[in-house]
Amino acid sequence: VPTEGESRAAFAHIRKQALAHQAAGRRIVVVQGLGFVGAAVAAVVAGARNSAGDPLNVVIGVDRPEADSYWKVAALNAGRAPIASPDPALAGLIAEGVACHSLFATTCEDAYEIANVIIVDVHLDAANRVGGAETDIDVGLASFRSAVQTVGRRMSPDALVLIETTVPVGACTEIAEPILREERRRRGITAPLQLAHAYERVMPGPRYVDSIRAYWRSYAGIDDSSAQAARAFLSTFIDTDVAPLWELPDTTSSELGKLLENSYRSLNIAFMYEWTLLAESLGANLFEIVDAIRVRKGTHDNMRYPGFGVGGYCLTKDSLLAQWGAEHLLGSDVKLPMTLAALDTNYHMPKHTLDLLRLAVGDDLGGVTVSLLGISYLADVGDTRNSPAELLCDELLAAGAALRAHDPHIAEWRERPHVPLVDDLDLALRNTDAIVMAVPHSEYRRLMPQDIHDAVGRPAVLVDAQNVITDAAASVLREAGWLLIGVGKGHWQSAGYHRTS
Amino acid sequence: VPTEGESRAAFAHIRKQALAHQAAGRRIVVVQGLGFVGAAVAAVVAGARNSAGDPLNVVIGVDRPEADSYWKVAALNAGRAPIASPDPALAGLIAEGVACHSLFATTCEDAYEIANVIIVDVHLDAANRVGGAETDIDVGLASFRSAVQTVGRRMSPDALVLIETTVPVGACTEIAEPILREERRRRGITAPLQLAHAYERVMPGPRYVDSIRAYWRSYAGIDDSSAQAARAFLSTFIDTDVAPLWELPDTTSSELGKLLENSYRSLNIAFMYEWTLLAESLGANLFEIVDAIRVRKGTHDNMRYPGFGVGGYCLTKDSLLAQWGAEHLLGSDVKLPMTLAALDTNYHMPKHTLDLLRLAVGDDLGGVTVSLLGISYLADVGDTRNSPAELLCDELLAAGAALRAHDPHIAEWRERPHVPLVDDLDLALRNTDAIVMAVPHSEYRRLMPQDIHDAVGRPAVLVDAQNVITDAAASVLREAGWLLIGVGKGHWQSAGYHRTS
Repeated sequence: VPTEGESRAAFAHIRKQALAHQAAGRRIVVVQGLGFVGAAVAAVVAGARNSAGDPLNVVIGVDRPEADSYWKVAALNAGRAPIASPDPALAGLIAEGVACHSLFATTCEDAYEIANVIIVDVHLDAANRVGGAETDIDVGLASFRSAVQTVGRRMSPDALVLIETTVPVGACTEIAEPILREERRRRGITAPLQLAHAYERVMPGPRYVDSIRAYWRSYAGIDDSSAQAARAFLSTFIDTDVAPLWELPDTTSSELGKLLENSYRSLNIAFMYEWTLLAESLGANLFEIVDAIRVRKGTHDNMRYPGFGVGGYCLTKDSLLAQWGAEHLLGSDVKLPMTLAALDTNYHMPKHTLDLLRLAVGDDLGGVTVSLLGISYLADVGDTRNSPAELLCDELLAAGAALRAHDPHIAEWRERPHVPLVDDLDLALRNTDAIVMAVPHSEYRRLMPQDIHDAVGRPAVLVDAQNVITDAAASVLREAGWLLIGVGKGHWQSAGYHRTS
Repeated sequence: VPTEGESRAAFAHIRKQALAHQAAGRRIVVVQGLGFVGAAVAAVVAGARNSAGDPLNVVIGVDRPEADSYWKVAALNAGRAPIASPDPALAGLIAEGVACHSLFATTCEDAYEIANVIIVDVHLDAANRVGGAETDIDVGLASFRSAVQTVGRRMSPDALVLIETTVPVGACTEIAEPILREERRRRGITAPLQLAHAYERVMPGPRYVDSIRAYWRSYAGIDDSSAQAARAFLSTFIDTDVAPLWELPDTTSSELGKLLENSYRSLNIAFMYEWTLLAESLGANLFEIVDAIRVRKGTHDNMRYPGFGVGGYCLTKDSLLAQWGAEHLLGSDVKLPMTLAALDTNYHMPKHTLDLLRLAVGDDLGGVTVSLLGISYLADVGDTRNSPAELLCDELLAAGAALRAHDPHIAEWRERPHVPLVDDLDLALRNTDAIVMAVPHSEYRRLMPQDIHDAVGRPAVLVDAQNVITDAAASVLREAGWLLIGVGKGHWQSAGYHRTS
């Protein structure tokens, strides 16, 4: 981590180049926060070109000079993506942006002073997300307030502040706007404030970059001038022919839209959990039933599948931001019981996989070796934020199981450093008592039943929580003496695949 | 209603023609029950042609010789659709089928004896659908059992019985199959029983016929032979190039699929109700927010809109058939709390429209004239089955309001004969105190604000429960002194459109 002096010295160099871009008619865009969203947005905005192939923006990513964030600044300046991504376009954009001097990163807050646009992409957490009354919701506003305050203290008078962070409903008008106005008043700025909200829909995965560049975007400003500035800027890096922009009438509507769309997803996952339990009890294969329903394009084709649980940064908390913001920022007394119950259902979902494991192994897991395949919250992505594997591991360890975790995309499990993470799949499986398939990574889908059997060295138990194992593969394993059980796979259960002989 | 003798005499004529078709290689298909599904299925099956344009099937619709059902038989034989439909193709198919002697209707049960295929399209109701424990669910199985028993007593040994009725999960193997086997055993039939389930997805509306002929269909048999027979028959009238058939492994899966897909729809409507209340309390226009979200094709484009309530024959009860069948037919102890709570929410939803009315008119509705526009459960369709208008009318009458209902598609409201139904829209509106827009019929959407004002003759209250009134029209009415309030239209509320001056 650089000292403040080192940081300023490094920034002097960036500043010079950025101002040269600005003099050539390009926007200086400062991205505040270089996490899963900010780093990718920075890369895409820096990669925006006009029809002649010239850059439209120069981007400076800013993150804090602390051990847990500075590495992102260093990675970006070295031309590397701070996030491992299966989308090669992300690394390509970053390398190109750095090579062409249109993408920089810094810890120096002077960057805000030269920005034409400041994009706020900082974290805003919601804790106590599970169980209890909605009054227990704990929203981590301090860092958001502080980030906005920093912007207000340093921004140039006519810069556009664009909030992309997912915020409690009301945060733009009740938190960001008053803070910015107060800081600007202190500085004697009389120019009108330009503030807009444009929520991101970034999806880590193979289409990471396109989830920004070629994906629909809603936005709203605190006034017409802010909305127009936001539209003009968003149009520089979003392919609006593919994904037209949608202006909403006010920032509250825009904030609510983001929280609603993620709550909708979360609810539909929780709904399918009820039917997972039902289908299992009836001996039905719910995956196949859902497939047969999803052919109904336009009405039913987004029905969710049974699964292991819900993780990530959005679906696990966004409903709370709606409930909390409505009550505490905007004075609403409306409750969202169904929406919040869904969060609770989804949080506890991995316990069902544990129940299935017990059905096959027996109630006492003491001393039982369990190999957990997959700790990421998403297939083919190395992202452990709020992974549902956390709860399963906690419960397995509490029950005395000998746990080995494996994930081809994760080298270090920051949230559960005490869980043994085995790099080599064969070693993770060797002589284990039970395998839990928790994430449908391609590497696991490609496994042949003989591979699994050989790696373990003898028949064992397999719990498939993600429809990774086909019926044909299950049949081969069963012939070899394995016990199998699966989330949503009632047909295995009705055929006695899991009963101990 | 004909006597049994008259019925037999009429059938002798039908029988002769049907047997001639059969001799020419066509299937005789008997459709049991000529309701919203059966009548349309009969028409489509009769209209099926081979590539040379020759009919593939001859269809005999059967319904009971009673006052509340015989009219359907008479209508069909007269070449008229027993159901008013906005889809001209339905009337066309029926007229053509009758004219070409490939579509008949009868009350005579002798029809079952000559059938190659018997389609069961009888009603199966679930009552006590709202509130209370799931043990209170009351499924009207008697008529279903009786219908299947009739089939078993009369069917030819090698006919295929195809159940399209939406049944409790388990009904094929636990109810229909044992009844059919028992009746056939008594008759000394040793041929294997052919029984399959293929749930319909009929949608009353402008694409009524295509919702059968060009729409996806799942099916399952009690054995391979039954499944093959079902596929062969379904392929005669379903355009499988457009909508390939999907075979499920067993009838339980097929039954569950139908109940799941309607429960999914029902849940998503209930979910949006929570957010409707929230958006109204925040002054947001939820219709516009949902529109902005629905651009996300494939993941969010089927998000529901705010509305008045849920009616019809499917979404109001199918979840109950899942819960009841699982417990009472298949011995499952799994509960569906979220799914059943959604039914409850949807049932009570019209009370919110009443609340909005009170916000504009005042709490005391005694003597207040209320004009209810729309009593059908669906736009542009004349169908009052379980219409949400029932609850609103009950509450309005209990509160002492002077009620006038209007619906361009309904001449008689069988479920609420005591509610005055006014044919003429102008008369329904003349000098009223408050209008409730409950169904987005095209006729209402076409109304100009001046039309509404002139019809009433003075400013009044308008409650828009279905986004019928545009913001521009609302603004004109407000200028003219009207008070307006709308479900999901928080922006009207925040702009003070409904407050009494």
